Amino acid sequence: MSGEQELGITESKEHSTGDWYAEVVQKAELASYAPMGGFIVTRPRGYAIWERLRDHLDGWFKDTGVRNAYFPLFIPESYLEREADVVEGFDPEVAWVTHGGYDELEERLAVRPTSESIITPFIAEWVRSHRDLPMRVNQWCSVVRWEATETKPFFRTKEFLWQEGHTAHADPEGARDETMTRLDQYERLYEEVMALPALKGRKPPHDKFPGAHTTTTIETLMPDGKSVQAATSHYLGTSFAEAFDITYADEDERERTAHTTSWGISWRAMGALIMAHSDDQGLVLPPTLAPEQVVVVPIWQEDSEAEVVEYAADVAAELDEAGIRAHLDDRENRNPGFKYNEHELKGVPLRIEVGPNEVENGELTLVHRPDSENAVADRAGAVETVEEHLDTVYAKLYARAEATLEGEIRAAESREEILGTIGQHGGYVKTGWCGDEGCEEPVKEAIAAEVVMVPLDRDEEPVHEECAICGEDATETAYWARTY
Amino acid sequence: MSGEQELGITESKEHSTGDWYAEVVQKAELASYAPMGGFIVTRPRGYAIWERLRDHLDGWFKDTGVRNAYFPLFIPESYLEREADVVEGFDPEVAWVTHGGYDELEERLAVRPTSESIITPFIAEWVRSHRDLPMRVNQWCSVVRWEATETKPFFRTKEFLWQEGHTAHADPEGARDETMTRLDQYERLYEEVMALPALKGRKPPHDKFPGAHTTTTIETLMPDGKSVQAATSHYLGTSFAEAFDITYADEDERERTAHTTSWGISWRAMGALIMAHSDDQGLVLPPTLAPEQVVVVPIWQEDSEAEVVEYAADVAAELDEAGIRAHLDDRENRNPGFKYNEHELKGVPLRIEVGPNEVENGELTLVHRPDSENAVADRAGAVETVEEHLDTVYAKLYARAEATLEGEIRAAESREEILGTIGQHGGYVKTGWCGDEGCEEPVKEAIAAEVVMVPLDRDEEPVHEECAICGEDATETAYWARTY
Repeated sequence: MSGEQELGITESKEHSTGDWYAEVVQKAELASYAPMGGFIVTRPRGYAIWERLRDHLDGWFKDTGVRNAYFPLFIPESYLEREADVVEGFDPEVAWVTHGGYDELEERLAVRPTSESIITPFIAEWVRSHRDLPMRVNQWCSVVRWEATETKPFFRTKEFLWQEGHTAHADPEGARDETMTRLDQYERLYEEVMALPALKGRKPPHDKFPGAHTTTTIETLMPDGKSVQAATSHYLGTSFAEAFDITYADEDERERTAHTTSWGISWRAMGALIMAHSDDQGLVLPPTLAPEQVVVVPIWQEDSEAEVVEYAADVAAELDEAGIRAHLDDRENRNPGFKYNEHELKGVPLRIEVGPNEVENGELTLVHRPDSENAVADRAGAVETVEEHLDTVYAKLYARAEATLEGEIRAAESREEILGTIGQHGGYVKTGWCGDEGCEEPVKEAIAAEVVMVPLDRDEEPVHEECAICGEDATETAYWARTY
Repeated sequence: MSGEQELGITESKEHSTGDWYAEVVQKAELASYAPMGGFIVTRPRGYAIWERLRDHLDGWFKDTGVRNAYFPLFIPESYLEREADVVEGFDPEVAWVTHGGYDELEERLAVRPTSESIITPFIAEWVRSHRDLPMRVNQWCSVVRWEATETKPFFRTKEFLWQEGHTAHADPEGARDETMTRLDQYERLYEEVMALPALKGRKPPHDKFPGAHTTTTIETLMPDGKSVQAATSHYLGTSFAEAFDITYADEDERERTAHTTSWGISWRAMGALIMAHSDDQGLVLPPTLAPEQVVVVPIWQEDSEAEVVEYAADVAAELDEAGIRAHLDDRENRNPGFKYNEHELKGVPLRIEVGPNEVENGELTLVHRPDSENAVADRAGAVETVEEHLDTVYAKLYARAEATLEGEIRAAESREEILGTIGQHGGYVKTGWCGDEGCEEPVKEAIAAEVVMVPLDRDEEPVHEECAICGEDATETAYWARTY
């Protein structure tokens, strides 16, 4: 049927990654393009993934002392200007509200590009004494950055969903610990929920968040060999606290300046998830995040319909009862092949096929979405069997992503070697580095690759003694890659 | 101590309701005023209430076929204009984005005042066949309406949090059922979670949502005798489906127009909650919504400190273990009286006092926030005891609100009687009504009261045979009140 043809993915992940990604996002009904360039509509199947990511993180945040709040969508221009570094960073990218109803506003309002400049003054107001610290607030919201780039759902959009956490602490140790706690939680989300291994590190000084003392980052690798900055956590030192006057009385009633952090993850994580795992049949999702974890498909001939459908319905109900998100696809007007294609396209991790043979033998046929591996199991103990297979599907996805990442970290000792290796293979190249931004320039200009991170441990020896670019003493190891 | 004095509520609920409300909101740390008039910052204690309201409703929505999505924050002006009724209703109240970065936009973008005009075209795109119906999407988001009124946190703010549900159905019955399902869920939220009885009805024709066939409403009474429109659910007929072309192929492949609904509840519900239950000591919350349900306060003298604090900590831990949100207030630098005041101000529903006597007798002293009633109970079985007391606190709040509501519905038979009754008592007045907007005018002009709703059952006889204003035949019963 030509109808079936059009439903499926027509682009190739290997040969046209960008077009393939856009096709998967739309045909798996995750998102549609909005009428305004740079904006998307997140459809229910897409939003359900975001909700699950949010709920995992939100639970961990709350378990570790974070409380949610909600700050205004708009920030007065004068507030944005109070923190010079922030303005320098974001001013050109801001959407401005200039009119309310028929009237021009006296002061323009920025649609929040990030909320340091409106949240920090309130933290300053709320913090009086060392007993008020640490103070941690977080909000789940959307932000707008008016960047003139091509729309790529979840990766590059003018409006995006994220969370932004903002905390204040009595001393640098508390703030540094906070920064690492959040980075570790982002890493945990990637590893335990998204089935994606990630690299953890610091951004080089010239690529820090404006005003930050240290920007830490989680980087993950895409199939086209580019690195995605998956989440960041910033130790802000006292720069914001000084600009916005967050001081507190310590135990001896002396006035001290607080140390602050901020940290965030956006729906770009969803983009990385979709792009890393999916294939030419469509969306692939880990069972942790799939709206439906299992689809049960009855396969009947005219004389066996009632029996087969009842058996399948019974399996689906038993799984559902046990808290597994199971869907029975007993549509009369679609054949099994059509259904298989549709559920593969939509990323259902596990398919259970039930035909007259399965009914007769008291069995189930289980098929894994990522590699079509199938197995026959006893009908009895279906819940346990399905849970095991879902775990296996997760493990397969993680193992595949891990093998890819490990194979894509290569060493280099010269500018030519960096260019050649990234040019040929993509992925990460690690080198000795003097730490100078000037040594990044020639690589950036030649192949648009940059230093995406340096390992966190400052005491560790660089991989080589010399900077791969200038040959001076290396002070650290740099990971180079092309980026999203 | 003068410090303690300032912490408490200084305004009177009875004599200066507005000032008292603003003081409770701020001193209980629910919200602060933002630098821009009309905007507020929802602080963690306030946002936690909103999260619980959201989570209750969201669960019920999902159990009844609703899926969440996220549509863009901005709506192009031309989209807003496509539905003339919507534009007429909202145009003057819209915040306009005119610039992105340094550039003026070719088309102005409205910050969403409500999302019919952006969601409906997508529903039209997604609905093809009767098999796609019913289609239900919902989003939790903020909306902006540029109304020039005094800021009243949660009641009147230019930006507010809400959810908006939008659905399409094959026939009017399906859409009407949907409208009532959501209205019933809002009523359930009020009755089972917010401890507030509510009146359910239709808005009079001239006060419907623009473009709606029927607007149904939940109304609840505030202590100053004014009615709050607590949530609305609209049956939109085919007006939006026609304007945005939501058609589907029925079972015989004939093209038909869908019937749509929309329904929403905003954080005004929080305003109603706070205003209805709280008192001159501060915030009062039902245990269902309180961030902390129980506070355990140890009361020691020097020689009993270790013993008492350990006993109190043990109680708090046991409650916490059982899923009760319990907080141990063992601060050394505050005396018990200060703590009592603070937790009363912040609306903790139940206080457990533990002193040397309680330790010696193996008992607990429990104090109810709403009326300070106290009881002594055995330490053994603390979880069950506390659960019972929390239920009792809920029941007390509900009963008090119900008695108030029942006592505040009065009948009237003439314009003078409406004016006199509402003028003297506030509350609701029910009368016979001809259904003509013209008959509402004289009451509106005289005392700013209006017809807030008519009962849902159209077959029911009006309370009087004649319209209380014009004396013509009454077609229905009108409930009159002043409103928020």
